[in-house]
Amino acid sequence: MQRQSELEMMDAYFDANATTPLSQAASEAWIAASRQHWHNPSSLYPQAIEAKGFLEELRESLARMLDCPFGRIVFTGGATEANNGVLRHAAGHLKEYGGVFVTSAIEHPSVAEGAEFFLRAEQLQQIGVTPEGVFDQDVFSTVVQSGQAGFVSLMAANNETGVWQPWQEVARICREERIPFHCDASQWIGKESLEGLASCDFVTASAHKFGGPPGVGFLLIPEGSGFQGSVGGPQERGHRGGTENLPAIAAMVAALQDCRSSVNGEFRDQFESDLVACLPAVRLLGAGARRLGNTSMFVLPEHKNLRWLTRLGKRGFAVSTGSACSAGKGNPSRVMQAMGCGFEEMGRVLRISSLPDAGAEDWEGLLDALLEVRDELGSGAGNSSAGIPKISLADL
Amino acid sequence: MQRQSELEMMDAYFDANATTPLSQAASEAWIAASRQHWHNPSSLYPQAIEAKGFLEELRESLARMLDCPFGRIVFTGGATEANNGVLRHAAGHLKEYGGVFVTSAIEHPSVAEGAEFFLRAEQLQQIGVTPEGVFDQDVFSTVVQSGQAGFVSLMAANNETGVWQPWQEVARICREERIPFHCDASQWIGKESLEGLASCDFVTASAHKFGGPPGVGFLLIPEGSGFQGSVGGPQERGHRGGTENLPAIAAMVAALQDCRSSVNGEFRDQFESDLVACLPAVRLLGAGARRLGNTSMFVLPEHKNLRWLTRLGKRGFAVSTGSACSAGKGNPSRVMQAMGCGFEEMGRVLRISSLPDAGAEDWEGLLDALLEVRDELGSGAGNSSAGIPKISLADL
Repeated sequence: MQRQSELEMMDAYFDANATTPLSQAASEAWIAASRQHWHNPSSLYPQAIEAKGFLEELRESLARMLDCPFGRIVFTGGATEANNGVLRHAAGHLKEYGGVFVTSAIEHPSVAEGAEFFLRAEQLQQIGVTPEGVFDQDVFSTVVQSGQAGFVSLMAANNETGVWQPWQEVARICREERIPFHCDASQWIGKESLEGLASCDFVTASAHKFGGPPGVGFLLIPEGSGFQGSVGGPQERGHRGGTENLPAIAAMVAALQDCRSSVNGEFRDQFESDLVACLPAVRLLGAGARRLGNTSMFVLPEHKNLRWLTRLGKRGFAVSTGSACSAGKGNPSRVMQAMGCGFEEMGRVLRISSLPDAGAEDWEGLLDALLEVRDELGSGAGNSSAGIPKISLADL
Repeated sequence: MQRQSELEMMDAYFDANATTPLSQAASEAWIAASRQHWHNPSSLYPQAIEAKGFLEELRESLARMLDCPFGRIVFTGGATEANNGVLRHAAGHLKEYGGVFVTSAIEHPSVAEGAEFFLRAEQLQQIGVTPEGVFDQDVFSTVVQSGQAGFVSLMAANNETGVWQPWQEVARICREERIPFHCDASQWIGKESLEGLASCDFVTASAHKFGGPPGVGFLLIPEGSGFQGSVGGPQERGHRGGTENLPAIAAMVAALQDCRSSVNGEFRDQFESDLVACLPAVRLLGAGARRLGNTSMFVLPEHKNLRWLTRLGKRGFAVSTGSACSAGKGNPSRVMQAMGCGFEEMGRVLRISSLPDAGAEDWEGLLDALLEVRDELGSGAGNSSAGIPKISLADL
């Protein structure tokens, strides 16, 4: 009964870029590993050696999926740890070889704030995005040609807008110019193909974004890299000290094996067309760019987003006012700022991010709920969008 | 059937200082939380707010156990992360206030190597131990009186010998002198009383040492501290960015609630008496000091420890040649070096660490197995201990 009501809730779950429910395969893998392979993989008796063997099998499975040598994979405690580690590594690299750390203005806080934490202001060069939220490649080319770039970091897809970033092209340029390149693929992996990711020197992944448990992820590093995450202990070939989290790693690999290679965007597209038809003053963000098929971010014509979110929540619909990491803070969205949105607009934004298997009826349900809330909230006097005609559900 | 054979194996499990099997309570808590509270606690809809509420309930439960304000608790990804974080914090503190980082020569690599990584050599003062493996308080007092100490770190109990360190006394002195004090209590918590731990400014704990899952732990920090673990995201009141690992935290708290307050050492003591009676040339380490009741470390009279370990392993007994973290490296034990052991002795050491519920028959089984292995290995010609009389099982 409990389980049934949870499954019903999942149909109305549109915050998948914040986290995903544990997949059945991941849950089974976690439980099995925590029973069968709980021994410390660094110990030396038969069960520990089996645990170590299982760990390396998991690494090889993942390496096959990513088409990279297994020695490039470091299992981590999640994306924040990995991104912080790359930033600290970059700081050491820049100290040795010079140059600046080039990144986008729309990175996750674990990169953006990590850069401010580990680097000096004069070592940082942030490149803006187009109004559609795409990394500005022209500016990037200029920076590269100037010879200033010492380390580059660009996310694969943005967590708020879902907009794809030109990471393949940036990876190619960095490879040619021999500039280390890091790609935070936390939102990409599990939603899009893994193909080409191994062409980046460093790649960050987070299991709980694709049906794995929280507190685990992986980081690709270059072969022969001196990368040093946490210090102390020989685990992960010295790249990350700390007892390996075998149940979580097994669950992560099972979850990734279970992912479809790409989320079809047709239902999201239909939802957006219908939404704009019903609420013409809605402003879609990044809709002209290639995006993750599960994500839609838009500015509502009126009322604070929290009023929408609360009323949607009462109807069982889980949506977000931006990334979960910034939502809790009540801070304006850095991503929207970079896209040139006004401060007031930031207070009217919603982020919708479905699970990969959401179907037409799920998206239609969300649209219905949005229109119900629109009717409930009514049109505020003196609101900038007070002139928008009110459409009732019956008009659809 | 599989489960049965695992349980039988656990009777012969003597590597609990490396890791422990997941307790039933922890397993149930993990599974329940991963089903019921999988939403991102930083999101704002009802299920997310429930997840956040559950997280804070867990923090309050833990705070009650530790008798400290709940605001002092930061949930972490484990002891290595926590210890590294404290080291980085200490580096910032010393930069601001001056002084040296004072620690023992027997800390876990996540403290010892972390100190070398985050601090300059001249900022480090390592204090040795007595031949019994106890932190040298006289030297410590001298250092404190000289006014040099800017930050102090001392483990609660050593992971290899199990020897209690004078952390309560050091905490008291540091409090009086207003020197920040960190205690790595990874081996203490779950085996000894939690009483007094909150008197330390920083305390590190690791869940998988007391029946919780790997990849999770907690760190006590001082109230109002500017401690910054991972960067990016407002989680843990800004002290540690990254999506909270709610299932693992729930499992950790359940595991700790399930722990007995103290492990009785009587079976270990009997084992050691019998061992010395049968193998008089065995040298017990730290046996004259107060120790964790589950731990015994000793130098065997002859044969490399790996030969013993392998043969014990074939009989189903899991033991260690030192800490799991150094065992994999094949490096000599830093702890034994600090205790003045010779290099050759380090190759003949075994660490025995039982689960809390190991009984007389478990320890007797281990002794029998050790004597069987002794008979199997025989006495090597030219070995330093060749003169030791060989005792057969029948003599017992």
